[in-house]
Amino acid sequence: MNDMSEKFDLDTYEVGYDIPAKPGMREEDIQTPCLILDLDALERNVRKMGDYAKAKGMRHRSHGKMHKSVDVQKLQQELGGAVGVCCQKVSEAEVFARGGIKDVLVSNQVTDPAKIKRLANLPKLGARAIVCVDDLGNVADLSKGAMQAGTTIECLVEIDCGAGRCGVTTTDKVVELAKAIDAAEGLKFAGIQAYQGAMQHLDSYEERKEKTQIAIDMVREAVDALKAEGLECDIVGGGGTGSYYFESNSNVYNELQCGSYAFMDADYGRIHDKDGNRIDEGEWENALFILTTVMSHAKPEKAIVDAGLKAQSVDSGLPFVYGRDDVEYVKCSDEHGVVADPDGVLKVNDKLRLVPGHCDPTCNVHDWYVGVRNGVVETVWPVSARGKAY
Amino acid sequence: MNDMSEKFDLDTYEVGYDIPAKPGMREEDIQTPCLILDLDALERNVRKMGDYAKAKGMRHRSHGKMHKSVDVQKLQQELGGAVGVCCQKVSEAEVFARGGIKDVLVSNQVTDPAKIKRLANLPKLGARAIVCVDDLGNVADLSKGAMQAGTTIECLVEIDCGAGRCGVTTTDKVVELAKAIDAAEGLKFAGIQAYQGAMQHLDSYEERKEKTQIAIDMVREAVDALKAEGLECDIVGGGGTGSYYFESNSNVYNELQCGSYAFMDADYGRIHDKDGNRIDEGEWENALFILTTVMSHAKPEKAIVDAGLKAQSVDSGLPFVYGRDDVEYVKCSDEHGVVADPDGVLKVNDKLRLVPGHCDPTCNVHDWYVGVRNGVVETVWPVSARGKAY
Repeated sequence: MNDMSEKFDLDTYEVGYDIPAKPGMREEDIQTPCLILDLDALERNVRKMGDYAKAKGMRHRSHGKMHKSVDVQKLQQELGGAVGVCCQKVSEAEVFARGGIKDVLVSNQVTDPAKIKRLANLPKLGARAIVCVDDLGNVADLSKGAMQAGTTIECLVEIDCGAGRCGVTTTDKVVELAKAIDAAEGLKFAGIQAYQGAMQHLDSYEERKEKTQIAIDMVREAVDALKAEGLECDIVGGGGTGSYYFESNSNVYNELQCGSYAFMDADYGRIHDKDGNRIDEGEWENALFILTTVMSHAKPEKAIVDAGLKAQSVDSGLPFVYGRDDVEYVKCSDEHGVVADPDGVLKVNDKLRLVPGHCDPTCNVHDWYVGVRNGVVETVWPVSARGKAY
Repeated sequence: MNDMSEKFDLDTYEVGYDIPAKPGMREEDIQTPCLILDLDALERNVRKMGDYAKAKGMRHRSHGKMHKSVDVQKLQQELGGAVGVCCQKVSEAEVFARGGIKDVLVSNQVTDPAKIKRLANLPKLGARAIVCVDDLGNVADLSKGAMQAGTTIECLVEIDCGAGRCGVTTTDKVVELAKAIDAAEGLKFAGIQAYQGAMQHLDSYEERKEKTQIAIDMVREAVDALKAEGLECDIVGGGGTGSYYFESNSNVYNELQCGSYAFMDADYGRIHDKDGNRIDEGEWENALFILTTVMSHAKPEKAIVDAGLKAQSVDSGLPFVYGRDDVEYVKCSDEHGVVADPDGVLKVNDKLRLVPGHCDPTCNVHDWYVGVRNGVVETVWPVSARGKAY
């Protein structure tokens, strides 16, 4: 029904009802609220991370859970040299595989029998299938699934190096799981997954460094213990937008898994680099915006805009108004945003660019990215894996 | 592309990739995370509100912004006697009109020229088109749009009776706008919109009563002033799940606009009725759940489930685990929920029903409602207006 391997025929879509814009439209005519991408900024971010990884001799497996878009992923591979995609759900993996991405890591546990069956079928869609494991019973189930499908599932042992979610916490457990994978028919031991998700958003560079060092030490110990057992790690993966420089200099990780760097958001933008600068002031550019329109200004001191909770996730705070310090987004309800306008500079139908608090779950609310360059719509991309949570 | 007037042919959808379940499946086989509806509880809620409104001589225009579903709306009309739908966006209105709903109120401002054109075309889809107004310039634009389309747009003057969003705040302004509407070609003055959105979730019944009384007094003054000018209000609309009994007993409102009563959520459930009971313990039943699966239990004291920020909105707090006091959903990240399991009672692949913190933006993340009765999937309904924010 929703096969991303075929190009969307935008001509069959109605602006306003189905899609917010068509190529060639001016930015001011886009139907709001919607997501827009500054293509110049996006391309600069993608190239910059690609160049960095290359210079460090690291592979970059860009995180598709953030953008959920085959088109953005292809850009990351073509302009940024990304070797493949990470994602979090089998249905996302299916979208990427159907869309032509050949190297797919589900950086998460897959335990439901029906999902294991689908995971095992990914190679039949032309993709390398890699998954994370933290449970011996799951190893047995994955093996059964791969054998039934007649395919190979590659498995990474997941280490919980501080995020407190999935993953084992001792080297003994890592080795036990790796051996079980290695011995299981249909499975291939492929290495280690160790993403420290909990500290990526810590404000202080030094604090992030300290937490990442704990992860690096755990991973090094595990890699050495595995080597002693004759088990080599093809992939030692981890590293996000708030930490990739630490993993890159660890001499133990070999794959980065950055996502948010490509789009940026308000919450990530606030964290500081080693020189004490916000990372959205130099390191990465804001490329993702919620375009919103003033729909009411019945009270002189505040404008009501059309982007509320149905146009974004506010789990990590409210959005900020990009490039403006005269107005401020101060309140968010289901359908409305309240923008403080103390000097009454806004009027009905004015448009604002908002930088969302948290890009991942905000992108997941929208069906389309409108790519803009020099004030003109250049492309409209589907958020191909939107809602693919199964 | 997405015409809700035609029935979905579920046979063309693949379970897991496109949809979480098919009719006839057992609840334990549903692919998660997904939304499930307890159809018995939903039908009881819908009948109860319908019976209440009928007994009070009130019309009920159920709020479709909450469920965004043509099927749920039809249930509210058929079982609950709802006279039509409220929604917040033109694209939602188009979905409901195309789906066969004949009486559609956009309980919001529509100011963008392209959206006004689409609003003016709603009658051509067979629906009565009603919209809210708080601005004289907008009256002129709406009139132009209706004349160009050759249709009639009915207009309600919106009073901001405490929500602090759209709407005017004085009777003089109400009368000025009503006269302008009445004089404008293509428009029909249809009454008043006065929904107090900000106090619906206040915990205390008495506090909600006090705030609603302020709204009722504002509305009564406006209705009387309009009558003195020869302007009758066909619709005096407002009232939500936390206040409908106040508007129903006001002798001035004649239409209710309740939404959340049908599904319930954790945030609404917590508020108290006049006897001091939670409203989800007697007044309304939880009919909406996020079904989630334990995907990892590598640490003995906590289970990791597959419903995170991509499966819900946490703007009004975390979900609770329905019917269980031995486990608790304590943390939510993009793809994971952490469930405290102090006694280690959960195991991998166990399923839990979560009651979401806030139903409206949670429903807007999902593509499907899986309707369940007696442990078996009875129906799968599209969230027809999901993502329709334009």
